[in-house]
Parts: sequence; C-alpha cells; structure tokens
Amino acid sequence: MYSFETIQEILSREFSAINWKVDPKELYTPVEYVLSLGGKRIRPSMVLMAYNIFSDDIEKAIKPAIGLEIFHNFTLLHDDIMDKAPIRRNKPTVHTRWNENVAILSGDAMCIKAYEYLGQCEGKYLKPVFDVFTQTALQVCEGQQYDMNFETADTVNIDQYLEMIKLKTSVLLAASLKIGAILGGASEKDADLLYSCGCNFGLSFQLQDDLLDVYGDQDIFGKKIGGDIVANKKTYLLIQALEAATDKEKVELNGLLKDQSIDANTKVARVKAFYDKKNVKAITEAAIGKYFSKAVVDLFTVDVPENKKNELKRIISMMIGREK
Amino acid sequence: MYSFETIQEILSREFSAINWKVDPKELYTPVEYVLSLGGKRIRPSMVLMAYNIFSDDIEKAIKPAIGLEIFHNFTLLHDDIMDKAPIRRNKPTVHTRWNENVAILSGDAMCIKAYEYLGQCEGKYLKPVFDVFTQTALQVCEGQQYDMNFETADTVNIDQYLEMIKLKTSVLLAASLKIGAILGGASEKDADLLYSCGCNFGLSFQLQDDLLDVYGDQDIFGKKIGGDIVANKKTYLLIQALEAATDKEKVELNGLLKDQSIDANTKVARVKAFYDKKNVKAITEAAIGKYFSKAVVDLFTVDVPENKKNELKRIISMMIGREK
Repeated sequence: MYSFETIQEILSREFSAINWKVDPKELYTPVEYVLSLGGKRIRPSMVLMAYNIFSDDIEKAIKPAIGLEIFHNFTLLHDDIMDKAPIRRNKPTVHTRWNENVAILSGDAMCIKAYEYLGQCEGKYLKPVFDVFTQTALQVCEGQQYDMNFETADTVNIDQYLEMIKLKTSVLLAASLKIGAILGGASEKDADLLYSCGCNFGLSFQLQDDLLDVYGDQDIFGKKIGGDIVANKKTYLLIQALEAATDKEKVELNGLLKDQSIDANTKVARVKAFYDKKNVKAITEAAIGKYFSKAVVDLFTVDVPENKKNELKRIISMMIGREK
Repeated sequence: MYSFETIQEILSREFSAINWKVDPKELYTPVEYVLSLGGKRIRPSMVLMAYNIFSDDIEKAIKPAIGLEIFHNFTLLHDDIMDKAPIRRNKPTVHTRWNENVAILSGDAMCIKAYEYLGQCEGKYLKPVFDVFTQTALQVCEGQQYDMNFETADTVNIDQYLEMIKLKTSVLLAASLKIGAILGGASEKDADLLYSCGCNFGLSFQLQDDLLDVYGDQDIFGKKIGGDIVANKKTYLLIQALEAATDKEKVELNGLLKDQSIDANTKVARVKAFYDKKNVKAITEAAIGKYFSKAVVDLFTVDVPENKKNELKRIISMMIGREK
C-alpha cells in the first residue's frame, strides 16, 4: 500500500516531468503556470488511493489521475474569469497575468488535455472511465451555472444549495474515487460505493469550508475569516440562519447583508452573532458529521479487507478534521 | 448510398430532436441557440459520407457526427468571444445576446457534450475515434492561438500561414472523414487517405475563402467583398503579395494597410489593384487547384469501387467550385 504522502510525491514528480514547452508557447505556458501552483492535488490522489485499494501497480493509473487534476484546474481557470478573481493560490490568475483570451483558450486546451490523459488508461477500461468522467464534467459545469444563478437569486433553500455543491464540488471527488476503483479492477458495486463515498465526503468537505470561513482559526485556515459574509455569499450557514429566522429577523439580517455603509469587520461580527443566536455552528457541524459518517459507511461497505481501506479512511478523516 | 442532400436532411432532423430543455436552462439554452443557427453542417456530413463509403447503416455514425458539429460550434462560440464578434450567421453571438460568462460556460459544456456524443460510437471503435478527435481538438486550439499571434506579428510567411489554417480549419475536416471511415470499418490505410483528403480539401477550401473575400461575387459570396482587407487580415493573398513585392512596394502596401484616414472602399480597391499587379489571383487559384487535386487523388486512392466515392467527390468539388 502507498501512503498518501508517497502518492503526493509521485504526483509531484509526474507533474514536474510533463513537458509544456511546446508550440505555440502562448497556449501552453499558462497551462504549465496553473499546474505548477500545486494545490493539494486531492483528485489525482483520490484516483491513486482508490486504485491502490484493488491493485498495487499504481503506475497504470497515473495518467488518468493527472487528467482529473488538469480538468479540475481547467474549471478553476474558467471560473476565475467568470468570478473576476485576481488571485488563486497566492498568485495572479491567468486572466490577470495574461488576459481573458489567453485564459479562455488555454482553459479549452486543458479540458481537451484532460481527456487526452484520461484516454491513456488500459483499453478495456476506456468506455466506463470515459462515461463517468464525461457525465461528471457536465455536472461540474451545471454546478458552476447554479452557483452563478444563486448570486442573483432572491432565495436559495438548503436542498438547492446541497444540489449545487454536489454538482460543483462533490461529483468530481466521487468520480476520482470511482475511476481509480474501475482502473484497479473493482466490482461495479465497489466502484459505486466509492463514488458514493466521494460524494458524501465532498459534501462534508464543502460544508466544512463554509463553516471554517466563519468559525475557523485564521492562522490555520489560511485565509481571512468572514470572506463569505463580506461577499454576501449564500453559504450553508447563511441559508440555515435565514430558514431559522422569524420574519422580523429575516428583514434585519437581509438589511445587514445589503448595508453598504457598514465596515467589513462589524458586518462579520454582527452576522456571526446572528449565526450564534440561531445555533448555526452546531447545525452545520451536524450536517458535516452526517455526510462524513455516510462516507465512512460507504467505504466500510467496500468488499475488501480493512487494511486496504485504512489509508483512504485516514485521509478523508484528516481532511474533515483539518482545522484541529 | 445516401446523397449529401439526404444526409443534410437526416442531420437536420437529428439536431432538431435533441432535447436541450434541461436544467440549468441558463447553461443549455445558448447551446440550443447556437446549434439552431444551422450553418452548412459540413463536418457531420463528412463523417456520414465517409462512413457511407464503407458501410450502409449510417445510423451508427450519427451520434459521433453530431459530436463533431457540437465541437465545431464550441470553437466558434469561444472564438467569437476572443474576436469580439457581434454577429455569426446573421444572428447575435452568444456573448452579445447573453454575456461573456454565459458564452464561456456554455462553450465549455459544448466541448464536453461533443465528447459525450462521440463516445456513443460502437465500443470497439472508441479508442481510435477518441484518439483522432482529441489530437485534432488540441490542434484546433493551437490553430486559433497561431491565428491570434498573427494579428500582432510583424510578418507571417506562407508556410506559417498554411500551417495555421491547417490546424485551425483543415484537421477537423480531416478528422471528420477519418472518424467516419473508422466507424464504417475502413482499413487503417483508407482511413488515413481520407484524413489526407480532408486536410487537402480543407486547405483549398480556406484558400478559396480568402480568394472570394476579394474576387468573389458579392451576391453569391453572401458577405461584403474586401472584409479581410479592411480588417488588415493576413490572408494568403496579402502574404503572397508582400512576398512578391519589391522593398519599395512593401513600404507602399504596408503604408496603405496602416492608413487610418483612407475610406474602406478606396482601401479595398487599391489593395486589390496591388494584388492584380502581382498576379495574386492566379497564384491563389493555382494553390487551390493544387490542394484540391491532392484531395481528389487521395480519394481516388481509397481502395473501394469508384461508385462508392462519387458522392463525396461531387460534394468537395461543389464546395470548391461554389462561387460558380
């Protein structure tokens, strides 16, 4: 069995070894730039960890794993244009460093490159891997669309929000585990269990991200607390708070959100006080716990000896307990 | 054998039958809009005509053929953002009718949808079809990048120009014929000959497009004569004219191109007079003829009875002789 840390090292080496110095350099230099920023490389790690549950020779899954990471970075690149985000991973985004046209076209090339890497799997697995990936890739676009719709929507309910984060975030983690399982020779049932595991893990992961934005330790979380509140983002916490509010409180909270004159720190403190009053932290922690437990049960149900699954269990636990 | 006209009818029916009324509608309505604008649907027709050379049951190739058309329209959609083009096929472009974010994300979904349709081919052909398509899709991005580079380049030579139009236009026509051939059960040699045929046809087609912009009959050509000259586009004609020019003439021609004060009609007339002096029309016609002949020879060499190839030969001849 490979540890997560060893898998990370292998991936780091593989990404460094890709030659992006090909013509036209205007197209591929931004791709190299984006991929060199690193990040946690969770998705390709998931492919390899799921593969490793069923097979040892993880080399066979490295190229498709890279494909998943390229796809993920393609979505970040285009999302950053749409969100007009200047910074990603502490570096200028591609449309900021170059321009929008570069970001559009390099992103397009990345989407196709993702398929190119994915296609370098064992021939007998191409069709099922291709089908999972393509369905997932479309869902990620749909999730991004819902996320954009929510920005201007008057109200978003909890079910709509969960569906959005499932599409935008969870299904790609789910597909990473499932693709790894398929390539490792898992039964259809086990591959589906890992898909479900990834989906539930993804939900708990995103909800925790929402929680940490308000209740995290800034030094550990790595970004300023309350960013979502300042940006009026419709997070799980805000939606829960609004659903628990009386009509009078709703007016009050919406007034606070729309108040342009209030300074950021006061706004964060006052919205947080409202969340505290409505017990939103405990509600969100309960939801995180619920989805995380489901993920663990899915993994537990996969029909292989426990010792094969321990590493994946350790990693998803670590990621959900990452604020500690 | 199916005639081109019957194939066009089949495709028209198939495109109309696709249900784009799915959620989120903000994502899929622009896709439906773009595909409903029609156009000549040359690429999917090529898939089906090439298939029909080797097999009769063209139904099996319809889904992948649709994939090629969706991909082509995806590239137009994103190119139109990059070129800031307000109109396509006499209708507002997606980024004009909606906005840039819609055009980026709907385009992304189209790229993935193209793969989804392509993947609905017979399982045994998935790998070769996937490989041809993915390589081609990347080349199309590369061609678009070179085209953008040329806008700001001081000089572009004929070889660079031919390489650019090959990547941007020809390889997708080539891949359409090759994919049709593969799906129809062609030998590797015949599939490669059809690829070469499509590539040469594509070059002659694009060069003719350049020629018609200056020497076409406006009523038949369907757009204003001299558009490329007004836009200072580095076409085959301009590059040939510059390569044939003396140093003094180069200064004169470049001065004419850069002159902001001159009115469009005068500019077109004067550049055209220069082309006439340098015999650029005949040079371009010779190149069109050269690549068209190569395409015909490629098709002639495909190892099936002549009557199987007549329809494709008729269509590529019609398209190259389309100004008459």
